[in-house]
Amino acid sequence: MQSKDEGKEMTNVYNFSAGPAVLPKAVLEQAQAELLNYKGTEMSVMELSHRSSSFVDIIERAEQQLRDLMQIPDNYKVLFLQGGATQQFTMLPLNLAKGKKVQYVNTGSWTSKAIKAAQELENIEVDVIASSKEDNFTSVPVFAEADIDKDAAYLYITTNETIGGVAYHEAPKFDGVELVADMSSNILANDYKVEDFGVIFAGAQKNLGPAGVTIVIIREDLIQEDKSVPGFFSYKTQADKESMLNTPPTFAIYMVGLVLDWVAEQGGQEAMFNNAKQRANLLYDYIDQSDLFVNNVKVENRSLTNIPFLTNDPELDKKFIQEADAAGFKQLKGHRSVGGMRASLYNAFPLEGVEDLVAFMKDFEANNK
Amino acid sequence: MQSKDEGKEMTNVYNFSAGPAVLPKAVLEQAQAELLNYKGTEMSVMELSHRSSSFVDIIERAEQQLRDLMQIPDNYKVLFLQGGATQQFTMLPLNLAKGKKVQYVNTGSWTSKAIKAAQELENIEVDVIASSKEDNFTSVPVFAEADIDKDAAYLYITTNETIGGVAYHEAPKFDGVELVADMSSNILANDYKVEDFGVIFAGAQKNLGPAGVTIVIIREDLIQEDKSVPGFFSYKTQADKESMLNTPPTFAIYMVGLVLDWVAEQGGQEAMFNNAKQRANLLYDYIDQSDLFVNNVKVENRSLTNIPFLTNDPELDKKFIQEADAAGFKQLKGHRSVGGMRASLYNAFPLEGVEDLVAFMKDFEANNK
Repeated sequence: MQSKDEGKEMTNVYNFSAGPAVLPKAVLEQAQAELLNYKGTEMSVMELSHRSSSFVDIIERAEQQLRDLMQIPDNYKVLFLQGGATQQFTMLPLNLAKGKKVQYVNTGSWTSKAIKAAQELENIEVDVIASSKEDNFTSVPVFAEADIDKDAAYLYITTNETIGGVAYHEAPKFDGVELVADMSSNILANDYKVEDFGVIFAGAQKNLGPAGVTIVIIREDLIQEDKSVPGFFSYKTQADKESMLNTPPTFAIYMVGLVLDWVAEQGGQEAMFNNAKQRANLLYDYIDQSDLFVNNVKVENRSLTNIPFLTNDPELDKKFIQEADAAGFKQLKGHRSVGGMRASLYNAFPLEGVEDLVAFMKDFEANNK
Repeated sequence: MQSKDEGKEMTNVYNFSAGPAVLPKAVLEQAQAELLNYKGTEMSVMELSHRSSSFVDIIERAEQQLRDLMQIPDNYKVLFLQGGATQQFTMLPLNLAKGKKVQYVNTGSWTSKAIKAAQELENIEVDVIASSKEDNFTSVPVFAEADIDKDAAYLYITTNETIGGVAYHEAPKFDGVELVADMSSNILANDYKVEDFGVIFAGAQKNLGPAGVTIVIIREDLIQEDKSVPGFFSYKTQADKESMLNTPPTFAIYMVGLVLDWVAEQGGQEAMFNNAKQRANLLYDYIDQSDLFVNNVKVENRSLTNIPFLTNDPELDKKFIQEADAAGFKQLKGHRSVGGMRASLYNAFPLEGVEDLVAFMKDFEANNK
C-alpha cells in the first residue's frame, strides 16, 4: 500500500475477491487503450461480429495460447461456453452418463452442488464414493482404487474448493476410470497434466478473465452424438458449431486471450504455479506461528488459491474485516458457510499484496492480544 | 464519413453488423474512462464480486431502468441469463409446455431454430400454425384466431427476423393463448406492450449491449416449480436465485445498464422507435425508387432494424460490398442464406450513417448502369 497510514488517502487497494477477481493491471490497461478502436478497425471488440475475421482471430489465438500454456494434447477439444461451472454440473452427466453410474468425491460446497445437479437428472445413478463432510470439508477424503467402480462413466473431483480452501495437490490416478474435474479456481495455478483428465472445465472469473465465459477441455472420444440431449446442452453440438451455437461472449473471450498472453509473458504455467506457492506459503507460514489466526484445513490439503482463516472470535473477525477494508484490503470476508476471513490469491494477485496483508495481520495481532 | 474520398484516410466507419453490433460511442467512452477504477473502488467492474454492493447496485439499476423504459408491469420478473436466444429456445418449451402442445408462427431463420429446438425435446407436441416458408420468408404469414389452439401452452413469434428482415408491426392479439416472443433484434426499437406477452426474451448484442447476456421478461404466474426441469434450465430456480444461480456476466450487465441509461437520455423507447422509423424509411424510400437495388420483403412486414437489399446480380453485389467496405461502410454483406446486402440499423446506429449510405448507393448506381 502506498499510504497505508492515511487510510482514505491511499492510491491502491488489494482485491481478495474469490471471483470475479483481480485481473492483471497490464491487461486492463490494454483493454482500456483499445476499447473504442480494436487494432485499427475503429470498432470496439464488443462491436465486432463474431463471424468477422477480427474476432475469429481473437478466439483462435486464445485457444492456441491455452493449448500452449497447458500443453493440451491434439485429441482434446477446447470449448468456450457460458453458464459457468453450474451449466457443466448438468451438461457433464447428461452427456457422459449414457446409462452408467457416475461417481463423485465430495470435498465441499462446489462438489456438493455438482452432485445435487446430477441427482436432479432422471435415470442417472449418482454414487458419492468419498466425502469429507464429516470433518466439515477441511480435507480431501481418503479413497482407494477399491472404492471406484471401473464401469462408471466417470469419477468427478473439484481440484480446488474455493469456499473451504481445500485442494488436490496431485490428480488422483486410477486406471480404467475417466477423471473429470471442475478446475475453476486453480486452473493454470497448478501442475496437473491435461492427459490425466477426460474433461476439465473452469469458469473464467478466477484465474482466466472476467465472468461470462467457461472453458471446457474435453477429450474427443468423449464427445458423442446423443439425440436425447438438447442441442444447447450437447458437447457434440457445441463442438460441431465451434463454440458458436449461439453468439459467444466475445468481449469476455477477448479478455481471456489477453490474460493468457500475460500468463505466457510471466513465464507460463510453471511460473504461475511457483508464484501461487510463494504467495500461499507466505500467508500459511505467518498463520501457523500466529497466536491469533488459524487455518483449519488439513496441512497436506491446503489450497494455494483460497486461504480461509479466522480468530475463533466472531466479533474479532468482524473487527479485522472492517479495519482491513478501511486499509485497502478488500473482499476479505469469508463465505457465510465458513465464516471468518478468506484470502483468494489467484494468478493476477501480486505478492506484495500478501506481504502487506501479513504485516497488517501482525499489527492487528499485536493490538488485539 | 469525414473523408470518404480519400478512402483509407478516413477517421470513421459505420458498423452495419447484425450483432454483435454498434454501441453508443458515449457508452464506450464511459466504460473506457472507468475501466480500471469503477466509481472510486480502484477496481474494474470486471473485478467486482457479483455479491459486492457495487455490483448489486449495477444490476438493480439496470433492471429498474429497463422496467421504466419498457413500462414492465410489477407482476413480471426480469432475468439476466446467458446462452443467448438459443438457450431460451429450449428453456421455454421445457418450462412452459407441461404436457400441452406448443404453437409457432414461422417467419424465418430464427423461428425455424426455435421450432427445431422444441422438436428435439421429448414428449412435447410442436405445432407450426403458419409459415411464410413458401414465399422464402419475405412476409409475416397471415393467420387467424381459428388457427390457434387455445389449449396450447403458448403461441410463439419472433417479433423481428434479423436475417430475412421481416417484422410484426403490432403484436398479434388473441384472447386465451399466451404470446411468447423472441425480441432480440427489435427490443426497445418498437412500441409493443409488455402486457401483451407472457414471455419476452432478447440477446443483448443488438439493441442492448455486448454479447454475453440475455434478458428474459416473464410474467410471474408462468414461473412454476417443475422437478423434471434441471435447475440450470428452470425459470423458477433462476428467478429464486435472482439471476445468480451461477456467477452472472457482470461486465456485460454493466454495459447493458449504461446502454439503457443512454436510451433514457435520448428520450426512451418512443424516441428509439421514432429514430428507427426515420432510419429505415430513409433507406427503404431510396431503394424503392432505385432502378438497381431491391428489397423483396412485403411492404407491410418490413423490418425497421434489419434491411436486406440486393441488385439481382451477385457479381454486382460483391462489387458493391467491396467498395462500400473500402469506403468505411462495414459488415454490409447479407447473410449467406439470403445473399446480397443487409443494413442492420439498431438503436445505436446514427442517422448520418444511413444518409451517407444512401448517398454512396446513389453514386454506385450512377456508376454501374
